[in-house]
Amino acid sequence: MISLAKLQRRIDAGDLSADDSIAQSLEAITAQDKTIGAFVCRAENLRAASDGPLRGIAVGIKDIIDTADFPTEMGSPIYRGYRPRGDAAVVMMLKQAGASIIGKTTTTAFASVDPTPTFNPHNKGHTPGGSSSGSAAAVAAGMVPLALGTQTGGSVIRPASFCGVAAIKPSYHLLPTVGVKCFSWTLDTVGLFAAGVDDVARGLSAMTGRPELLLPPTISTPRIGVVTQDFAGAPEASGEAALRIARRAVEKAGATVRALALPKNVAEAWRAQPVVQEFEAHRALAWEYREHYDAMAPLLRAKLDGSRDTTSFAYDEAIAVATRARQALEKVFDGVEVLLTLSAPGVAPKGLGSTGDARYNRVWTLMGVPCVNVPALVAEINLPVGVQVIARYGADAQALAAARFVEQALAGRISAA
Amino acid sequence: MISLAKLQRRIDAGDLSADDSIAQSLEAITAQDKTIGAFVCRAENLRAASDGPLRGIAVGIKDIIDTADFPTEMGSPIYRGYRPRGDAAVVMMLKQAGASIIGKTTTTAFASVDPTPTFNPHNKGHTPGGSSSGSAAAVAAGMVPLALGTQTGGSVIRPASFCGVAAIKPSYHLLPTVGVKCFSWTLDTVGLFAAGVDDVARGLSAMTGRPELLLPPTISTPRIGVVTQDFAGAPEASGEAALRIARRAVEKAGATVRALALPKNVAEAWRAQPVVQEFEAHRALAWEYREHYDAMAPLLRAKLDGSRDTTSFAYDEAIAVATRARQALEKVFDGVEVLLTLSAPGVAPKGLGSTGDARYNRVWTLMGVPCVNVPALVAEINLPVGVQVIARYGADAQALAAARFVEQALAGRISAA
Repeated sequence: MISLAKLQRRIDAGDLSADDSIAQSLEAITAQDKTIGAFVCRAENLRAASDGPLRGIAVGIKDIIDTADFPTEMGSPIYRGYRPRGDAAVVMMLKQAGASIIGKTTTTAFASVDPTPTFNPHNKGHTPGGSSSGSAAAVAAGMVPLALGTQTGGSVIRPASFCGVAAIKPSYHLLPTVGVKCFSWTLDTVGLFAAGVDDVARGLSAMTGRPELLLPPTISTPRIGVVTQDFAGAPEASGEAALRIARRAVEKAGATVRALALPKNVAEAWRAQPVVQEFEAHRALAWEYREHYDAMAPLLRAKLDGSRDTTSFAYDEAIAVATRARQALEKVFDGVEVLLTLSAPGVAPKGLGSTGDARYNRVWTLMGVPCVNVPALVAEINLPVGVQVIARYGADAQALAAARFVEQALAGRISAA
Repeated sequence: MISLAKLQRRIDAGDLSADDSIAQSLEAITAQDKTIGAFVCRAENLRAASDGPLRGIAVGIKDIIDTADFPTEMGSPIYRGYRPRGDAAVVMMLKQAGASIIGKTTTTAFASVDPTPTFNPHNKGHTPGGSSSGSAAAVAAGMVPLALGTQTGGSVIRPASFCGVAAIKPSYHLLPTVGVKCFSWTLDTVGLFAAGVDDVARGLSAMTGRPELLLPPTISTPRIGVVTQDFAGAPEASGEAALRIARRAVEKAGATVRALALPKNVAEAWRAQPVVQEFEAHRALAWEYREHYDAMAPLLRAKLDGSRDTTSFAYDEAIAVATRARQALEKVFDGVEVLLTLSAPGVAPKGLGSTGDARYNRVWTLMGVPCVNVPALVAEINLPVGVQVIARYGADAQALAAARFVEQALAGRISAA
């Protein structure tokens, strides 16, 4: 993988020109993407910006995010050749920070669950996960140092876990969704993929112009609550192993760790999330569903068919459940700085028939809290598994710092004093 | 004006065909719009839907709301000829309820403050207000029974007050903003204009499929708190008269009325609203501002120039202020069902140099609470002035019912038992 932090250091030191940095990504895509399929379209020639913290950084953009310079096809033939008039807010934030947009990455149709023809770079017999399939795969394969995705259920953290890359789903609305195709306005969140936690932090800090999101020079030892999300069912052996190994590593590194039971309200919110997601999707995708029913991707269409009769009463109830759960979760964070939990049930599923299961992600998207994936182990058949570090709403800096602690603990780079 | 309720009754009774109802609106636009300028573009021929509660109802759509069948030009040459791929969620909600989209109404550029060439139907020497200028004017002139607008500061309630029509800015996100050009994601709210409160309630209920938003057969007598929003400065004589007359009318009609001082937090939120609005606008309109600076409307551009340096710290503070104010406002509604306050400082300003002042609207948009304009008096030079009825977040039905009470009290149709 390409480390954004390393690129920045080499560019700043004059060891690498910003243009050469971009050229390396262009070459990597040419060399690798025919066997991975992470990009829908890409730039042929691309220059670096002359300044900005992300100059020389090539970024892949999930293809539900508007770009004026590339078509934006939403993973659906309904938008074939569609060329937005302008760039999405997050694309402009990248450009203003000096980044270069190198191409559009594959997305399941409208960021739902119909798989794309993208392979997991670690094992091409497996899915990279979704819905941000191409962004996770492009970073994992070392084609780009940074990519944008979006998460409504588990579409950033899950593919990051399957592809062995770091990623953040920031607090709700830290990054604007203006110019991002909507699935659910209560849930949709733009996220970042990069090689490691420091790389993700640098990307997010530069985009938002928030220096407080950079990792501090010294990472303090966090108080960690481990949660297993029993309401979501049991994990597979590899998922369980990842959480166990991460827990052991942070304990060894001196963190205060305790198992936590989540409040009942949070379990209720886990059940409410699909109601919110699908009620809103019926409105957000009403034009596509009514006017282009036959061209809709089959799994998404079946999901919408099955949720047609969700009442506004059920939706209002689900929103009320979410509000109560957010309040209850705030109190959980009075006792611990971050939660440590599963990013996915286990390794990436075999084949390209499914993008995997978002069951350990969806309640956190509804809670709007920042979630960071940290690769934790490489399981059988060369497939990675990550763990998820979660902080309270708005504490993205804390989530990143604690994730860095977990990352370094797993690498054996911290030991208790 | 055309009453939506009356049209529905005539169509249901077979006194008027749904197609003839639409044809009447087409003719009214042909007859009137050359002297009003409410429409950017319009259908030449249009048929009614065969069913749905809004069949036969012609609707004007503010031109920042995406329509697949009409260009969507955002009031700006930057979007000249722009044709979205699909319909906005609210347009689909109208169509699914059986309404017919008759055309696009004028909007200030990106729903900001640069006036459109639209005249107030009551007095063509005056503005209809903005930013939903065309939608308010089209309803006031009797061209359509229903129109959609949006409000970020005061862009629904203010033009409704200036044009003497009923309107609702519903609770935040009761209507989705998917496919609506974003100015500020925390504030932007889609609203409805119609002849009277019952008409507005019928439109909103049909769009959302929520029968609870229809007016009840018997309107109960509300407990009303009158607020003058002193933090926003004093009103003009006509605005003050409107509030005084409305207060006297509801007292005479038997309502319990008392003057209320708003919590200090709400006054702080009033000062915070422009910070939220402009910080977010810099991100939402980043592409336009950076790539089409010269083509930006001058007042909007000057506003953006002046707020370039707003820090994320100031924004975070403003959001925190808003959160505290929402909590404080909830408690105010423990004592009264609705607030009664000014919709605008006074009558519509003279000329087309300004769309008027949103100072009595902006805090309510930030609070996300439902606001209904009720026309209260016709002041000097034939210009109307409205008052604003406000309920707690989510209590749109209560806001509408109380607004109906105010409307009937003003018409002298209720007297205390």
